Amino acid sequence: MPKISERGCQMPASPIRKLVPFAEAAKKKGIKVYHLNIGQPDIQTPEVALNAIRNFDQKVIEYSHSAGNESYRRKLATYYQGIGINITHEEIIITTGGSEAISFALKVCLNPGDEIIIPEPFYTNYNAFALAAGVKVIPITSSIENGFALPPISEFEKSITPRTKAIMVCNPNNPTGYLYSKEELLQLRELVLKHDLYLFADEVYREFCYDGNAHFSVMNLEGLEEHAVLMDSVSKRYSECGVRIGALISKNKKLIATALKFAQARLSPPSLGQVIGEASLDTPAEYFREVYDEYISRRNLVIEELNKIPGVFAPLPKGAFYSVISLPIDDADIFCQWLLEDFSYNQQTVMLAPATGFYATPGLGKNEARIAYVLKKEDLKNAVKCLEEALKVYPGRK
Amino acid sequence: MPKISERGCQMPASPIRKLVPFAEAAKKKGIKVYHLNIGQPDIQTPEVALNAIRNFDQKVIEYSHSAGNESYRRKLATYYQGIGINITHEEIIITTGGSEAISFALKVCLNPGDEIIIPEPFYTNYNAFALAAGVKVIPITSSIENGFALPPISEFEKSITPRTKAIMVCNPNNPTGYLYSKEELLQLRELVLKHDLYLFADEVYREFCYDGNAHFSVMNLEGLEEHAVLMDSVSKRYSECGVRIGALISKNKKLIATALKFAQARLSPPSLGQVIGEASLDTPAEYFREVYDEYISRRNLVIEELNKIPGVFAPLPKGAFYSVISLPIDDADIFCQWLLEDFSYNQQTVMLAPATGFYATPGLGKNEARIAYVLKKEDLKNAVKCLEEALKVYPGRK
Repeated sequence: MPKISERGCQMPASPIRKLVPFAEAAKKKGIKVYHLNIGQPDIQTPEVALNAIRNFDQKVIEYSHSAGNESYRRKLATYYQGIGINITHEEIIITTGGSEAISFALKVCLNPGDEIIIPEPFYTNYNAFALAAGVKVIPITSSIENGFALPPISEFEKSITPRTKAIMVCNPNNPTGYLYSKEELLQLRELVLKHDLYLFADEVYREFCYDGNAHFSVMNLEGLEEHAVLMDSVSKRYSECGVRIGALISKNKKLIATALKFAQARLSPPSLGQVIGEASLDTPAEYFREVYDEYISRRNLVIEELNKIPGVFAPLPKGAFYSVISLPIDDADIFCQWLLEDFSYNQQTVMLAPATGFYATPGLGKNEARIAYVLKKEDLKNAVKCLEEALKVYPGRK
Repeated sequence: MPKISERGCQMPASPIRKLVPFAEAAKKKGIKVYHLNIGQPDIQTPEVALNAIRNFDQKVIEYSHSAGNESYRRKLATYYQGIGINITHEEIIITTGGSEAISFALKVCLNPGDEIIIPEPFYTNYNAFALAAGVKVIPITSSIENGFALPPISEFEKSITPRTKAIMVCNPNNPTGYLYSKEELLQLRELVLKHDLYLFADEVYREFCYDGNAHFSVMNLEGLEEHAVLMDSVSKRYSECGVRIGALISKNKKLIATALKFAQARLSPPSLGQVIGEASLDTPAEYFREVYDEYISRRNLVIEELNKIPGVFAPLPKGAFYSVISLPIDDADIFCQWLLEDFSYNQQTVMLAPATGFYATPGLGKNEARIAYVLKKEDLKNAVKCLEEALKVYPGRK
């Protein structure tokens, strides 16, 4: 019997997915499970996008251009120009979700054995894509005390080696909800120029910045034209997670030309998803206002309620729709499984994402969990109540 | 300015894509270009599939299960059972096109530096996926003289090293149109058992076997349950190249479990494509009969006409809709560019895929080109006429 590859064995199983069977078992017992664990919004996809697919009138669903339909790329460039990011359609490659944009960027910019520095906690799958590309993730730990702000640049400096090729940020951040300030990004700018590194930015939550804070894109960092790489996606902006449409964007011509070779190998991004993505650019402003207001009120509710629970600390996120919170517990993985397996309150329980999966440094995040406020307020309230009651009786409480 | 990775530099640009600017320039000059170079069929997508998307009534386009919707996988398993391939839905991972299935299989089964043996000429992108996965392709040359039959097993034996982990076939074959016989597959069975290798089979052209020849799947090779890996796609079967839906199939549980970890990292295959794929399973038999008859008559026409041209040899393909033909020329890359750049006949010309791109061994395929008979018969006739006239005046004729 032939062996599975070492990289296959090393590929981590998602810590959230490991909990799924327990959630399913709970549901089978008649327990209602509130899913604070996932980033699948309940927000409706814009009507204009759904109509585009209902009116699809081509007779053959053909391959598109490997970089994506030119009409879509041109219109997308206009969207970016409208929010102050000055790019052309030739600086865009449409990808199969933001996932593929990250995967392309890693393969185009880093060799196997090269290193990328990422502040932790970070989106778990960065690790998976890096492993698949043979790239080593070097984490720099950020702290819940200051809401997971950018760690001091001196910490980055300490981690830079001859193999360091890139720094990556997610802004606004998944899982922390932190929004990097212009000042923090200017510090990173100095650093990447000094060491001639790439600066990757996953900005898929760009539209979700709160309390008057403006988003600042890495594409607007002066002098970084050859260094800045933007990863984007329609998934969260328009609640279109399933269409699998993202984008890899850079003003570095050689980078885009090289990424195109990877894009050509897989032929084309999804054609129907591009129809949706292009139509979504006509989504009325009102849609975003409503979605925005909804998230703000959800955030305010859930953070306020969480902070009322003794021993719980939930920093107020300035962006995205997540927060990493600290809990008075011994072990987040055990606790999150216990919530599903051994606990219920009025036939209800809550599913959280243990934060351990968002840290690359072993042992960190053991008393933390990520919540996503992608449920209706009524459900969020019930979910937090479950958590409160659970913490009263959890045997591993600290 | 930071550097592009070595693997990025090594990634070959598609030899066909290199010709695209020349085709576009020809069109701008008012020349009609017959595209015998691509595998994008002009066949209509089944009505039942197009209706499914027009009737899409979900309000949120959500992520699907990372392995694909269970309803789709169950129905797909029934399709396979119907054609004598006995698999369950748990042995299927729905992928983003056949491309992702190949990419997953390489990463799950081979480590960087490991080797995979593939008879050449082969589908160019196997090389690209292998390069991206750090895997080395070892080609075994097949010959136009016997229609690109499986090379002798002794040739495979000679190429096996301690790093050899897999053998890959495309059956029916792109680019040659060759259909491997059961006997040839039984020889491969012996070989992979003897050396404990994986046997990958890209069977996306399964429905296109001609002249009464039956397709024999690697999934039906006895005792290969842990070794056989099937890559499939809806692209050609239903003329749905743009939906980007494929499948990775194996009875090897560990392999599927490991591939699922890669699948989870990229979240889900396209949701709308899965709606199309699932609906397509209800395509009436009549659709396939019509498509099949159309391809047969196209094949007969194009091969007959080609073989009438002095110095041209086109083996009769037993499957798929391609043929690699030999031409009385000095250099296929130069000739194919010349056809677009310097030649026209009655304001028409033809675009072919130089076969050099389908060989891994440098220098091979210089007098060969791949044709795809995916155009209407009238156009095929005109295309062959252009080729005939071109060969009369081509300066590099041999």
